[in-house]
Amino acid sequence: MNLKPLGDRVIVRPKEGEETLPSGIVLPDTAKEKPQEGEVLAAGRGEWHDDELVPLEVEPGDIVIFSKYGGTEITVEGEDVLILSARDLLAVVDKK
Amino acid sequence: MNLKPLGDRVIVRPKEGEETLPSGIVLPDTAKEKPQEGEVLAAGRGEWHDDELVPLEVEPGDIVIFSKYGGTEITVEGEDVLILSARDLLAVVDKK
Amino acid sequence: MNLKPLGDRVIVRPKEGEETLPSGIVLPDTAKEKPQEGEVLAAGRGEWHDDELVPLEVEPGDIVIFSKYGGTEITVEGEDVLILSARDLLAVVDKK
Amino acid sequence: MNLKPLGDRVIVRPKEGEETLPSGIVLPDTAKEKPQEGEVLAAGRGEWHDDELVPLEVEPGDIVIFSKYGGTEITVEGEDVLILSARDLLAVVDKK
Amino acid sequence: MNLKPLGDRVIVRPKEGEETLPSGIVLPDTAKEKPQEGEVLAAGRGEWHDDELVPLEVEPGDIVIFSKYGGTEITVEGEDVLILSARDLLAVVDKK
Amino acid sequence: MNLKPLGDRVIVRPKEGEETLPSGIVLPDTAKEKPQEGEVLAAGRGEWHDDELVPLEVEPGDIVIFSKYGGTEITVEGEDVLILSARDLLAVVDKK
Amino acid sequence: MNLKPLGDRVIVRPKEGEETLPSGIVLPDTAKEKPQEGEVLAAGRGEWHDDELVPLEVEPGDIVIFSKYGGTEITVEGEDVLILSARDLLAVVDKK
Repeated sequence: MNLKPLGDRVIVRPKEGEETLPSGIVLPDTAKEKPQEGEVLAAGRGEWHDDELVPLEVEPGDIVIFSKYGGTEITVEGEDVLILSARDLLAVVDKK
Repeated sequence: MNLKPLGDRVIVRPKEGEETLPSGIVLPDTAKEKPQEGEVLAAGRGEWHDDELVPLEVEPGDIVIFSKYGGTEITVEGEDVLILSARDLLAVVDKK
Repeated sequence: MNLKPLGDRVIVRPKEGEETLPSGIVLPDTAKEKPQEGEVLAAGRGEWHDDELVPLEVEPGDIVIFSKYGGTEITVEGEDVLILSARDLLAVVDKK
Repeated sequence: MNLKPLGDRVIVRPKEGEETLPSGIVLPDTAKEKPQEGEVLAAGRGEWHDDELVPLEVEPGDIVIFSKYGGTEITVEGEDVLILSARDLLAVVDKK
Repeated sequence: MNLKPLGDRVIVRPKEGEETLPSGIVLPDTAKEKPQEGEVLAAGRGEWHDDELVPLEVEPGDIVIFSKYGGTEITVEGEDVLILSARDLLAVVDKK
Repeated sequence: MNLKPLGDRVIVRPKEGEETLPSGIVLPDTAKEKPQEGEVLAAGRGEWHDDELVPLEVEPGDIVIFSKYGGTEITVEGEDVLILSARDLLAVVDKK
Repeated sequence: MNLKPLGDRVIVRPKEGEETLPSGIVLPDTAKEKPQEGEVLAAGRGEWHDDELVPLEVEPGDIVIFSKYGGTEITVEGEDVLILSARDLLAVVDKK
C-alpha cells in the first residue's frame, strides 16, 4: 500500500456484516458503537503523551476490533479501507 | 481468550439482571448508571498519566463492578463480552 | 467489606432524608446538588496529578459530606451503598 | 467548626440580600453571577497545579466576595453555610 | 481600595457607553463581545501555567480594553466596579 | 499605536470585502470562516506552552490571513481595528 | 507561493470531485467527513506537544488525504487553496 497514515492513525481493511468470523468473534450489526473486525494495512508513527512520541501497539497484519465511529472511508487500489485513530482500536487478535 | 485489549481497555464477561450474586452484591436494574458485575478476561497494557504508562489495577480473574455506559458488546467464542475502558471500572471484589 | 474501590473512588454508606444528624449538620432535601452525609467504608488507592499518585484525604470510618450527583448505587451484604469519586466529597467531619 | 473542607474547597458563612455592608460593598440581587459576601469558616488543604499542592490564598476569618454558582448549601450547628471551590472566590477584603 | 482580587482576577472601574475616549479609542455599543475601557484598581497575584505562578501583565493604574463577558459587577465605596479574569483583558494603553 | 495587546493577542487593521489584493490573494465573502487579510499593528508578548512563554510568529508590519471569528472590533485613532488571538492567524505573507 | 502558514497549519491545493486519482485512490463525494486528496504547497513550523515544537510530518510536494472539515478556502494567484491544521491531514502518499 502506498499510503502512510499520519500521527496516531491506522489504515484498516474492514470485514463487513454480522457473521461468525474465522477468529470466532461475532460483531452485532445493532450495537450502539458498531464494533468491526479488520486488518491493519498501515500504521502511523505513534501517539503523543506529553512530549513523548509512543509507537502504536499495532502493526500491519494485525487483526483488530475497532469502533467504526470517527473513521474516514476511502477506496485505495479498488479496496474500501478506513483511516482511523489508534484510539478507536479496541482490541487485537493474539498471534499464535 | 485470543483477544488482547488495547491501551487501558479490559474485556469483561458480564453477569446480567438483578439478583443477589454469590458476592452478596445486588445491582439494581433501575440504576441510572447501570452498574454491573463481571469477570475480567483480559486487560490492556495500562493507562497513561502524562508520559508514564501505569499498569491497570485489575488482572484476569478479578470480579469487578463496572458502569455499563460506554462499553462495546461483542461475542467471542460463543460468549457475550464487553470491551470497556478501565476508567469505567468502579470496584473490584477482594480476593480472600 | 470485601469490595475495593478503584482509582480515586470511595464507597460510602449514606444517611438518607432531612434530619438533624448527630454531627449537628442538616442537609436540605431540596438542595440543587443534594448534599448528603455518610460514612466512608472503603477508599481507592488515590488520584493522579500528572504522573503522581496522591493518596486520598479520607479513610474508612470518616464521616463525609458529599454531592450525590454522579455516584452509583449498589447493595452490598444487604446494605445500600454508593460508589463515588473522591472529587464528589465536599468535607469531612473532624475527628475529636 | 468541626467540618474540614476537602481539596480546594472552603466553607463560607454568607451574608444574604442587597445592602451596604460594613465593608462598603454593595452586591446587587440582580447580578447575573450573584456575587455574595461572606466569612471563611474553614479552608481545604489547597489546589493542585500539575503535581504541586498549593495552599489556598484565604484562611478562616477572611471576608470574601464569591460567585454563588456551584456552591452547596448545608446547615451546620444551626447556621446556613456554603461549601464551595476556591475557584469561586473572587476577592478578599484586606485586613488593615 | 480594600478589596484584593484572588488568583488571576483584576478589579476594573469601567467607562460606560459609546464615546470617543481621551485615549482616542471608540468602543461600539453593538459589538458582539462588548469591549470596554476601564482602569485597573487592583490585580490578583498571578496566573498558573503548569506549576508556575506568573505575575499578571497589568497593574493598578493601567487603562485596559476588556471583554465584558464573564465579569461580575459589584459596588465598592459607592463605585460600580467589575471583577474579571485577566484572560478577559484584551489590551493595555501604553504609558508614555 | 498606543495600545499593547495582552498575552497572545494581536491588533490587526483589516482589509474588507472581496477583491484581488495586491498580494494576489482573493478572500471570498461567502466563506464559512470568513478569512480576511490585514496588517499586524501590534503583537502581545507571546503564548504559553506549559510554563514556557513563546514569542509570537508575527510582528508589526506583517500582512496576515486570519479567521474573523472571535475577534473584537474597536476604533483606535479613527481606524477600525481588530483585537484577536494569535491562534486565529492562519498565514503570513512572506516578506521578499 | 508567497504565503507562509502559521503554527501547525498547511496550505493544500485540493483535487475536487469523485474520480479515480493517479494514485489509485477514490474519495467518495458522499462520505461523512468528506476526505480529499491534495498537494501540500507550504507547511507551518510545527505543532506543540507540551513545550516542545515538533516539525510537521509533511512538506511541500507531498500528496495528502485530508478531512475537509475545518479548512479555510482562499484564492492565491488564481488558485483555490485550503489552509488547514496538520491535525486534519489523515495520510500521505508514499514517495517511491
